[in-house]
Amino acid sequence: MKEQKVSRPKARLPRGFRDRSGAEIAAERKILDTIRTVYESYGFAPLETPAFEYTDALGKFLPDVDRPNEGVFSLQDDDGQWLSLRYDHTAPLARYVAENFQFLPKPFRRYAVGPVWRNEKPGPGRFRQFTQFDADTVGSNSSTADAELLMMLADTLEALCLERGEYVVKVNNRKLLDGVLEAAFVDNSRRGTVLRAVDKLDRLGVDGVRALLGEGRKDDSGDFTKGAGLNETQIERVLTFSTPGATLDSVAPAVAGSAAGEAGLKELEAILSVVRGCGFGEERIAFDTGIVRGLDYYTGPVFEAQLTFKVKNDDGQDVVFGSVAGGGRYDDLVARFTGQTVPATGVSIGVSRLLTAMTQRGLTGSTAPLIVVLAMGDAAGSFAVACELRAAGFAAEAYVGNKKVPDQLKYADKRGAALVVMEGDDERDKGEIILKDLKAGAEVAKTVETRADWVGARAGQSIVKRANLVAEVEKLLGRT
Amino acid sequence: MKEQKVSRPKARLPRGFRDRSGAEIAAERKILDTIRTVYESYGFAPLETPAFEYTDALGKFLPDVDRPNEGVFSLQDDDGQWLSLRYDHTAPLARYVAENFQFLPKPFRRYAVGPVWRNEKPGPGRFRQFTQFDADTVGSNSSTADAELLMMLADTLEALCLERGEYVVKVNNRKLLDGVLEAAFVDNSRRGTVLRAVDKLDRLGVDGVRALLGEGRKDDSGDFTKGAGLNETQIERVLTFSTPGATLDSVAPAVAGSAAGEAGLKELEAILSVVRGCGFGEERIAFDTGIVRGLDYYTGPVFEAQLTFKVKNDDGQDVVFGSVAGGGRYDDLVARFTGQTVPATGVSIGVSRLLTAMTQRGLTGSTAPLIVVLAMGDAAGSFAVACELRAAGFAAEAYVGNKKVPDQLKYADKRGAALVVMEGDDERDKGEIILKDLKAGAEVAKTVETRADWVGARAGQSIVKRANLVAEVEKLLGRT
Repeated sequence: MKEQKVSRPKARLPRGFRDRSGAEIAAERKILDTIRTVYESYGFAPLETPAFEYTDALGKFLPDVDRPNEGVFSLQDDDGQWLSLRYDHTAPLARYVAENFQFLPKPFRRYAVGPVWRNEKPGPGRFRQFTQFDADTVGSNSSTADAELLMMLADTLEALCLERGEYVVKVNNRKLLDGVLEAAFVDNSRRGTVLRAVDKLDRLGVDGVRALLGEGRKDDSGDFTKGAGLNETQIERVLTFSTPGATLDSVAPAVAGSAAGEAGLKELEAILSVVRGCGFGEERIAFDTGIVRGLDYYTGPVFEAQLTFKVKNDDGQDVVFGSVAGGGRYDDLVARFTGQTVPATGVSIGVSRLLTAMTQRGLTGSTAPLIVVLAMGDAAGSFAVACELRAAGFAAEAYVGNKKVPDQLKYADKRGAALVVMEGDDERDKGEIILKDLKAGAEVAKTVETRADWVGARAGQSIVKRANLVAEVEKLLGRT
Repeated sequence: MKEQKVSRPKARLPRGFRDRSGAEIAAERKILDTIRTVYESYGFAPLETPAFEYTDALGKFLPDVDRPNEGVFSLQDDDGQWLSLRYDHTAPLARYVAENFQFLPKPFRRYAVGPVWRNEKPGPGRFRQFTQFDADTVGSNSSTADAELLMMLADTLEALCLERGEYVVKVNNRKLLDGVLEAAFVDNSRRGTVLRAVDKLDRLGVDGVRALLGEGRKDDSGDFTKGAGLNETQIERVLTFSTPGATLDSVAPAVAGSAAGEAGLKELEAILSVVRGCGFGEERIAFDTGIVRGLDYYTGPVFEAQLTFKVKNDDGQDVVFGSVAGGGRYDDLVARFTGQTVPATGVSIGVSRLLTAMTQRGLTGSTAPLIVVLAMGDAAGSFAVACELRAAGFAAEAYVGNKKVPDQLKYADKRGAALVVMEGDDERDKGEIILKDLKAGAEVAKTVETRADWVGARAGQSIVKRANLVAEVEKLLGRT
């Protein structure tokens, strides 16, 4: 018979996606459980929408014949309709609210957690699937709804064991900047350029931004960026507004005479009044005119939770960690479907970024220590030992492979097991059992080759009465 | 200006998908947490693979030009490669193991939980996204690995508060039926027909299956189904094998002389020996030749967890609930990629079916009772009350809408709140606060129209000292 050439697929993770295991999943679960507990304590209830939405209902991105996947993952259903994977939790919420409006309590308050997908070019640290944790209040135009989200964010970060001073929740209002521009007679066409200039305050400083607001700026490489072309008075108004440390009082003159600006001020005053009245001070929730991110999308208050401690960046430099959550008021969301404006406000936590921050702070907790019971011939025996340890509340695994003892020991080491239990015929006859603390004996384990060697290597090893197994394990690992 | 006609998308859930909220999500979370706790106590560690795999790596389904979405949701990446959403957790596990083989502890033991997607025609109760919870041991050919999964399933069902006798984990071995057919000289071409006949034992009884194993069977409508064409001796062998209540001893003669059959018997003996040695009796884990489901896919032992209690079906009849989990040994999984056979065994719990069963048994637990603090003018005041209640461990929400008191009360009712707290100016001046138990006053709440009516409607309502708020709420709702 002629041998056929076998064509095999290559085992490879798709571009821009990743696998995650043990410690990272446990750490993320702890974070998600903490957020969920705080959100539920504030009266937000869970809502889960499917991964897919109809592309037209999802909005923002529409497939065309040439590039059906611009920004989102899209495919055509067998009835011809286009489906897209959600790229956030807000667009599905809008669809859900519009579809079920008459049956929902108003305001409708829900949280949503789960993966979202972006069909973008993957890069270092940029993945095409990641987890967001959102909370939104739909159907209230009251500033108390915004104030509550700020307080809830601050409480969530403390529930995650961040100390006061390690985070700050910042609030701004897009109507303020609109008001500054309106009061300064800046026409609307320059708004985008002004916005981008203000957003660079951190990086370029006041003088750089001043240049970008005026004629333009030449950077170190000699490249010239055309400015917004504002006059001196206009530039001063914008800079006064944007300077770090601005207070409601200090920005008031910059928006005087603008209806939008004055409305923005009033909303911020109402928000801060609730927040301060509940005892949330400036060190937890602060007004900051520098919050520009997402300003294009929102219609009123915008907020951002920032972690203020320093971490090493990829180049080994100390940098402030920065934003882990953002949100704001977006009142035109349901109107896409129904024509009727429904006021809404929400916040989204970037779980991956938060997880990175928590891991860098060592705040992620640990999984239960694992006990591996070696297989020594009598399978039921090792399983009975594992059963007994599980009944006492430990995580215990009877080895199910068919390797020799030194290999089993290496397996336990690779699993990161805390303890190995071994009951050979000799021990069973004497009513004894061997415990080996792998933390104490880790180095030894790597070099032993035979069972005799291993039994001889006493580091972290003890022989105890079989009847005292649970008590002896408790001594070594602590009570469960 | 001419008015433009606005075209709005219709807010609608995609065909075959669904939204899920409050109680169902809470119940599912409880089930997932319970499964996770048991699986981790057995030493299984979490692994999360992305929603997408390369279509060729996923296997089984391949997109073609005409119907790229046969069975799975597939789309083409911008580099031309086809991506598919996972349709189970086993295929991604195979890819992961093949890709990372040299770095993994052997055996590799992982659990995986999350949505899977099937591009199938939706129907009543059939959705295109659902949750599976899998556990697999890869790299062990030992029967202890299979035995462990059976015990873990049984322990999981009891951890979910099912009583002994309400479930049974059944085990069979596909080598047994192969052996029966081999020993009876049934040629391989009839195997599928025999399998389908045996699978109908529950529905058609012994005589119906006997007909299907022989010449064929005419059903009540007069339709004739052609049989497998076995002779009397062959039929007797198959029926002896398939009869409910068969034991290893009783089926032994039916496979005598077949190498496959004898190997199957030996594997089952080894599995049951471990299981019985650990004290798992026949009422928890039982041999059953009737387990046919998935038999085509597996290479050895197959298992299924069944719930034995009766529930009402859609027609109001009492029926046994049946299967909630299935699995078995599938040794050729990694070989697709590497050419090297890696023995593997696993089990998958259908979470939606399990949730349905648990809900029917009333075993899903409840969420924390919600307290709604009404907005009575002073926002900071109602938020401070909610803050105080949260600090005491309750779920408390300050109303953030801007409706009148009766509407707020209806809101609380619609949210299913347990308790409403109200502090108006009068109460504040007197250092008092009103508590209203909505369970007691639910009926009244539906009819009140004004605040005066409501204050007058005393059912379940009490005025307490503001200073005693937490203590009084504890009296009504119990300690947190």
